[in-house]
Amino acid sequence: MEPTAVLLIDCPDRPGLVARVATLLYQRGANILHADQHQDHELGLFFMRVEWALADVGAKGSGHPAGQQSGVGDLGREQGPGATVFGSPAGRKMPGPATQSPQALHFDLAAFERDFALLAEELEMHWTLTSSARRPRVALFCSQYLHCMADLLERWHMGEFRCDIPLIVSNHRAVEKLAAFYGVALEHVPVTPATRAEAEARQLELLAAYGIDVVVLARYMQILSADFVARYPSAIINVHHSFLPAFVGARPYHAAHARGVKLIGATSHYVTEVLDDGPIIEQDVARISHRDQVEDLVARGRDLERIVLSRAVRWHLDRRILRYGNKTVVFD
Amino acid sequence: MEPTAVLLIDCPDRPGLVARVATLLYQRGANILHADQHQDHELGLFFMRVEWALADVGAKGSGHPAGQQSGVGDLGREQGPGATVFGSPAGRKMPGPATQSPQALHFDLAAFERDFALLAEELEMHWTLTSSARRPRVALFCSQYLHCMADLLERWHMGEFRCDIPLIVSNHRAVEKLAAFYGVALEHVPVTPATRAEAEARQLELLAAYGIDVVVLARYMQILSADFVARYPSAIINVHHSFLPAFVGARPYHAAHARGVKLIGATSHYVTEVLDDGPIIEQDVARISHRDQVEDLVARGRDLERIVLSRAVRWHLDRRILRYGNKTVVFD
Amino acid sequence: MEPTAVLLIDCPDRPGLVARVATLLYQRGANILHADQHQDHELGLFFMRVEWALADVGAKGSGHPAGQQSGVGDLGREQGPGATVFGSPAGRKMPGPATQSPQALHFDLAAFERDFALLAEELEMHWTLTSSARRPRVALFCSQYLHCMADLLERWHMGEFRCDIPLIVSNHRAVEKLAAFYGVALEHVPVTPATRAEAEARQLELLAAYGIDVVVLARYMQILSADFVARYPSAIINVHHSFLPAFVGARPYHAAHARGVKLIGATSHYVTEVLDDGPIIEQDVARISHRDQVEDLVARGRDLERIVLSRAVRWHLDRRILRYGNKTVVFD
Amino acid sequence: MEPTAVLLIDCPDRPGLVARVATLLYQRGANILHADQHQDHELGLFFMRVEWALADVGAKGSGHPAGQQSGVGDLGREQGPGATVFGSPAGRKMPGPATQSPQALHFDLAAFERDFALLAEELEMHWTLTSSARRPRVALFCSQYLHCMADLLERWHMGEFRCDIPLIVSNHRAVEKLAAFYGVALEHVPVTPATRAEAEARQLELLAAYGIDVVVLARYMQILSADFVARYPSAIINVHHSFLPAFVGARPYHAAHARGVKLIGATSHYVTEVLDDGPIIEQDVARISHRDQVEDLVARGRDLERIVLSRAVRWHLDRRILRYGNKTVVFD
Repeated sequence: MEPTAVLLIDCPDRPGLVARVATLLYQRGANILHADQHQDHELGLFFMRVEWALADVGAKGSGHPAGQQSGVGDLGREQGPGATVFGSPAGRKMPGPATQSPQALHFDLAAFERDFALLAEELEMHWTLTSSARRPRVALFCSQYLHCMADLLERWHMGEFRCDIPLIVSNHRAVEKLAAFYGVALEHVPVTPATRAEAEARQLELLAAYGIDVVVLARYMQILSADFVARYPSAIINVHHSFLPAFVGARPYHAAHARGVKLIGATSHYVTEVLDDGPIIEQDVARISHRDQVEDLVARGRDLERIVLSRAVRWHLDRRILRYGNKTVVFD
Repeated sequence: MEPTAVLLIDCPDRPGLVARVATLLYQRGANILHADQHQDHELGLFFMRVEWALADVGAKGSGHPAGQQSGVGDLGREQGPGATVFGSPAGRKMPGPATQSPQALHFDLAAFERDFALLAEELEMHWTLTSSARRPRVALFCSQYLHCMADLLERWHMGEFRCDIPLIVSNHRAVEKLAAFYGVALEHVPVTPATRAEAEARQLELLAAYGIDVVVLARYMQILSADFVARYPSAIINVHHSFLPAFVGARPYHAAHARGVKLIGATSHYVTEVLDDGPIIEQDVARISHRDQVEDLVARGRDLERIVLSRAVRWHLDRRILRYGNKTVVFD
Repeated sequence: MEPTAVLLIDCPDRPGLVARVATLLYQRGANILHADQHQDHELGLFFMRVEWALADVGAKGSGHPAGQQSGVGDLGREQGPGATVFGSPAGRKMPGPATQSPQALHFDLAAFERDFALLAEELEMHWTLTSSARRPRVALFCSQYLHCMADLLERWHMGEFRCDIPLIVSNHRAVEKLAAFYGVALEHVPVTPATRAEAEARQLELLAAYGIDVVVLARYMQILSADFVARYPSAIINVHHSFLPAFVGARPYHAAHARGVKLIGATSHYVTEVLDDGPIIEQDVARISHRDQVEDLVARGRDLERIVLSRAVRWHLDRRILRYGNKTVVFD
Repeated sequence: MEPTAVLLIDCPDRPGLVARVATLLYQRGANILHADQHQDHELGLFFMRVEWALADVGAKGSGHPAGQQSGVGDLGREQGPGATVFGSPAGRKMPGPATQSPQALHFDLAAFERDFALLAEELEMHWTLTSSARRPRVALFCSQYLHCMADLLERWHMGEFRCDIPLIVSNHRAVEKLAAFYGVALEHVPVTPATRAEAEARQLELLAAYGIDVVVLARYMQILSADFVARYPSAIINVHHSFLPAFVGARPYHAAHARGVKLIGATSHYVTEVLDDGPIIEQDVARISHRDQVEDLVARGRDLERIVLSRAVRWHLDRRILRYGNKTVVFD
């Protein structure tokens, strides 16, 4: 996979946005691989995702050694989050050296970034510029149910996710063998109602120590505090085992069985401070019948949970999701 | 389509139920076409549906003229509801002559019914025995949106529904041309908050006059009173344009759009006195994206509504649905 | 619905395509509503669809009367096909006056077209420019099965399709009442093996007389000759009642039943000279079981056929489909 | 999970089949948990599946120790296949002691079997009687792609499959770590065109040594000989990565991409001597678009393959599948 850059934009809609962004990329010599736009006509908002090649501009096989690209990624990884986020209240500045590293590639990402920042300011854009050469760092949280955890680790192992997974956090020890098998550090952080604050402090410490960009709650059965959530805006992904907004809260399969629904669902979403209310990323359903008891729903639901959570993680890592208000744009 | 009988049973579960029912049918010479059982182990309930041939017992092509069968159907139709419902608080007695008409067929349905009634009493069964020779009479209710109405009429015209549709009731005049095209009487009954009671009285009068067994609300936008609903227990079918229990009440597509869901749904259910809370018969969903505005959801939703409502109607007419508590068993 | 223009492009991929198209539109004052691109990296091809408003440029509610726009549409309709197709071997030139009519709108479509033609030549583009002010003219063909026909007519009546449907052609008389109900002229053209050529000549005559742009085969059971097909490239849409390429040819439901599949499907596609082999537009499936006999598959399949054919027609009319080789790009 | 017995029957259809089977079970005191029938009216065949409790007849919590049941299972496991298959050319006799072991339970399975055998002979039934106390023994075959293997092992580990998996056979070494993690013996049997016969001989030896009842081909990329297949009739389950019968043979995702389909599929089926032609057990599909390249189809397809293969394995182990001709009845 050759390195690419992804630019995500949201801003007030106005004429000429596509023209100005595309022209700047063209002038800088970008070889666009994918471009997609969306307008929310009601709210007057414009969304755009552009992905272009960082290497291989001009001639194919231009002698750019893979080792060097990977070196850039390793370097960037030490620098902290590789995404430069501007204009958003939650923006985390990319440190200086990271903007230099892409210069080793054929496309001068740093120079583009400087020019684009001016354009973005003029057009009141919120934007994120990311290089795939720097792999995001993901932490997986779980409790005692491990089907999503096992699925995510296996997909990661197979190369479905472009990320590093250096850390698993769990309030149970059930995940020990899986963590060891996939070579991921496991930090056991017990949580009780009395020790919640303390546990979260420890978790945040771990996330910082491991340089984590994204937290995935793989059936983690504890509720995160608003403070915790605010530290990782649009960067904590959860799976809820119902078709939201139906069956919010605990034991949704029991509730679905009691209501006599004919389809069950699962939902992946960004976590916000309101339980099961964050922006929905993906949903899927499966048909059930009167023959299915609660335990059948639980078993059928596991497949749905695996699917919707793994899609959300992949799309997030591929920078295909733009959050706005309580919704998401998922570019395909 | 040769005439068949359908026996629907629900009762407390106990050993030997299948054996005793099947043995009685066997002794009476029934040629069983379909049989299906279900047990709710939690509630200790047993459900059964058996369908067998009424004609053609013994030898094939036994010279039973189609005209005669149809005559029985016509006769039965004049008698009122063909279903004999016992043991249920909502039971409506089949009038005397109806039990005679199946005698014209090879299987002696009346004799079987007498014997079975004894067994049923012993085993505390709620049961319904229906002959397909008598076609149920259906009334369709609608308001200004006609996609479900047009779809139901076309399916009926094509022979998908084994019923008569002698009556359309609407509080709008938009359906006039459709009603005329399919040759169904249209009764225009305007409804205002002030005249609700009066309108319902008129509707009930019409249902009685036309000998209606089943009422289908094809996007009928008025809420029926508890009194009205109580007159047709498990015999009023509605379609709600959401994936219940999500988005109960008015404007569900707007609510779905506001919540940012990734799938929309539709639900067909029996009407109870609590709005959008009756036993669910069928549900289906369609994938949407951030590109879809409310009007796109409305358009996509029309296909879902047509599908889930038409399935509910067909299954009800084929006597494949057993209601218990606030759920349904749908035999396939 | 305010009038819009749609530009469809396919050409060899090269840097700067989006920039140059978007810049030209920006300079001309286009208010872009939707823009989508796709690149086939294997074949080195670029595809683009842009839609922009024709009225209402600059200020909202700028006093452009709806009647005038509609007048333009009526005018355009008399001129023949509104789509200007260049660069394609099947290109049909838009007659002179049609390029004038959009001048009555705020966006100067004719001027844009002149400029764009130069750009397109330089960049070796195949392109189509269409104004929604001119409604395409559609002919529906059918035989004895009318479910797709009834569905298409009802959707058209409800406003789902932006087109005129002046003509139904059938080799059976079964469709007479439907045609009359929806006010569409019916031309009965019987076809026998011996009279195929003659019948097709008559059909082509009718298509010309009615100014038809698009032919929809709504379960039309006759095979069209290569000559006929060549007259309407990428403009004849068919529905095949299987999940192509499985079960090509006659009686696909029988074949599916014999093979014991667990899902059945339907496929809409552009007709080419090879039977059931044209570019696929849409497919869908439904789950079946061992209980379903051939007649059940036929009934379940009707819903699939309606869905996939109606989607293909809507997408084609919305100019969302680009055909290349034996495939389609369907912009969403 | 308390032990149950499953009786699978197929035979010529005739009146009274349900009555006679149900009556015998009733007389023997069986507490039926599930019963399902199907008739193929075309072929005049009758199919039935009945499941009843082996313990806990009469009173609940009757003091039957779990350890004892498990001991029966262990005993049975050593005896060889627990399924008694009569009347089928592939019938494998259950050895003497196995019929004794259920006597330790409350329901006298051995006595029932003796009585039922007489009835079955009279009614020309093919039948299989299985006790869940004896867990089937499954071997998993794979090559270099391990997603199905990893999925099956994880589901087994989570308790989704009622079976033992003592053996993995592979012509690659890639599966070594997985096998070790789940504690399953791995036998590496390389296969080349020249050594096919020798390799199969070794595989059959292993299957015998491990007492294997069921072989699951989890993306095993070698074709089995007709001889091999004949040794495990209706007991070798394969997954093919297409929607059969479309895209039979090698590289189906490439073929699907070339044809431009809009849905891809996967199929699980029993292996017969004709490639990709065996009785279909389950199929599922996923929507794709013009944006998806072959590698995207491969990735999407992995989820389908996991789902359809794991369902087939579970249903087979739950004795829910009856094969007849080249089709399957899957009781739900």
